[in-house]
Amino acid sequence: MNMSNPVNDFNEYREKMNAIILGKNNLVLKRLFNLDTNTYEAGALDVKTKEMLGLVASLVLRCDDCIKYHLGKCKDAGTTTEELYEIFAVANIVGGTIVIPHTRRGAEYWESLHDLHV
Amino acid sequence: MNMSNPVNDFNEYREKMNAIILGKNNLVLKRLFNLDTNTYEAGALDVKTKEMLGLVASLVLRCDDCIKYHLGKCKDAGTTTEELYEIFAVANIVGGTIVIPHTRRGAEYWESLHDLHV
Amino acid sequence: MNMSNPVNDFNEYREKMNAIILGKNNLVLKRLFNLDTNTYEAGALDVKTKEMLGLVASLVLRCDDCIKYHLGKCKDAGTTTEELYEIFAVANIVGGTIVIPHTRRGAEYWESLHDLHV
Amino acid sequence: MNMSNPVNDFNEYREKMNAIILGKNNLVLKRLFNLDTNTYEAGALDVKTKEMLGLVASLVLRCDDCIKYHLGKCKDAGTTTEELYEIFAVANIVGGTIVIPHTRRGAEYWESLHDLHV
Amino acid sequence: MNMSNPVNDFNEYREKMNAIILGKNNLVLKRLFNLDTNTYEAGALDVKTKEMLGLVASLVLRCDDCIKYHLGKCKDAGTTTEELYEIFAVANIVGGTIVIPHTRRGAEYWESLHDLHV
Amino acid sequence: MNMSNPVNDFNEYREKMNAIILGKNNLVLKRLFNLDTNTYEAGALDVKTKEMLGLVASLVLRCDDCIKYHLGKCKDAGTTTEELYEIFAVANIVGGTIVIPHTRRGAEYWESLHDLHV
Repeated sequence: MNMSNPVNDFNEYREKMNAIILGKNNLVLKRLFNLDTNTYEAGALDVKTKEMLGLVASLVLRCDDCIKYHLGKCKDAGTTTEELYEIFAVANIVGGTIVIPHTRRGAEYWESLHDLHV
Repeated sequence: MNMSNPVNDFNEYREKMNAIILGKNNLVLKRLFNLDTNTYEAGALDVKTKEMLGLVASLVLRCDDCIKYHLGKCKDAGTTTEELYEIFAVANIVGGTIVIPHTRRGAEYWESLHDLHV
Repeated sequence: MNMSNPVNDFNEYREKMNAIILGKNNLVLKRLFNLDTNTYEAGALDVKTKEMLGLVASLVLRCDDCIKYHLGKCKDAGTTTEELYEIFAVANIVGGTIVIPHTRRGAEYWESLHDLHV
Repeated sequence: MNMSNPVNDFNEYREKMNAIILGKNNLVLKRLFNLDTNTYEAGALDVKTKEMLGLVASLVLRCDDCIKYHLGKCKDAGTTTEELYEIFAVANIVGGTIVIPHTRRGAEYWESLHDLHV
Repeated sequence: MNMSNPVNDFNEYREKMNAIILGKNNLVLKRLFNLDTNTYEAGALDVKTKEMLGLVASLVLRCDDCIKYHLGKCKDAGTTTEELYEIFAVANIVGGTIVIPHTRRGAEYWESLHDLHV
Repeated sequence: MNMSNPVNDFNEYREKMNAIILGKNNLVLKRLFNLDTNTYEAGALDVKTKEMLGLVASLVLRCDDCIKYHLGKCKDAGTTTEELYEIFAVANIVGGTIVIPHTRRGAEYWESLHDLHV
């Protein structure tokens, strides 16, 4: 059973629209979507480190959906809340206080990922 | 009769707020709004090409409302879905995967412009 | 009594999430939040000028929540509507027409701050 | 006699290239250049305040040439070094530590504007 | 014989560093470089249109090296100076006056591409 | 003896200008500079991970001086060339091909840090 919550809503919209986009058969977009997946596979750096890199990049570029996506992946890879807030700290120092509103929404989504009531 | 849908909602809010802004009689803003209109008129480049330029610029700058506006204009100027996805491809390669969430919302709006059910 | 309106909604979400963020005791974030407050205190420049600087910076960086925050502070510091639209003009000329959608939402919030019906 | 220094070099290149650009007779660019000048004329806000707004916007958008231009205008309008560093502070807090390298180059240019030896 | 000029300098540095980067055999970077080439090949849109899209995207993102690269490609694809200045106009209206310094350097490079003395 | 090379040139300019900036005694800037140092100290995440986060953030925000600074710190913390190129890969996928010119200059600086002849 899939009850409505921020995590399910995000994943469902993402999957629905990715299917529409990929259904148009633009080869460059298809390859970019594949390459995006390859980027975060284990290599010299492990998956957890790569997902944290993807998260901090999404934070400073202030892309809420990218932040949500990588928060989910970071949680799966074992990032702790204390580690997450150190990533938030790097992003807010490098990117400035304009990152704060995205940190607020990211913090709220992180709580949702842990089934906590915000 | 103007039923509620994403295209009408966007246009109505845009017109309502533009009227409020222009009603304050700030001369610089008035001239900029006029100049914005002039920019996309036919010249050495035709209207369709200029609207595609406006769209790709809006995509890489990740401005959802600007994307919606130029998607409407691109459709009016005869841009096909296959051409649109090549514009999406340029934007996502130049601007990176942070453009993907805006591509999702743009793809959804494009379907709405064609009265398709997403 | 706190009726639902855009200004109260913004302030309540901001306060709720700031409490959650600061509750995690990340020292860098705590100090940055304090430093953010210090930045806008009167010095060689007065509070009104500093808040206008914070507003124009938020506008060109296209951060809607930052814009709302500084609009509230600008109103408290005595910025008039005519002055506000000159700040909007600088932001739209420096940052281009991608700032227009944020100007629309900022103009709407400014009306809400004055209890006008938009 | 125009000896080579950072201020003269900047102004001469700017004037030479503006002449080439305006010489192509693109009407939109011509009007935008004029509108840019109008934006900083005295209105509800005085010239000094408007130039400080232009400077902080240029700082957070990290445009070195725009920063140099507005530093020159700010000096002409009577901005003091203490006031300037409060503008730098707002820009670095809002825009983050990525603004620091631009602050370094701006600080160096400010010294040049005052004929100091850096 | 390859005399020093802005066009040769740009191309030589670009080729030297691309060789070093690709020599490290990072598969994601290799594929992205290939995909970048595919993006601008003729499809529903012709090469000239795609290069103009790449140019305007580079202008509003204010990437001088990307601008130079696409200026070279636009010239090869037959873009005229009048068309180029209409692309400059779109970029400066969408992206604002912070695009002007990049327009200056782009205009200078365009002259170099045509062997004119600036 | 300090021979001229890209690494020394960068460090010397940075130190000279930081001294000038901090000499003006703006309290907000002083505290931000201190906070910047605190951010990368070992906590739940180790120094090497934090420096890699700082590097990828600098890459996607396209700040050449920030990239150089964190490349030096990453090298000190033991980042290998293979790891570095995986960070470059994340940055170029998230931020797009506009990151490539910064990757070129970063790759060149990385070689200089290792005393290799580019």
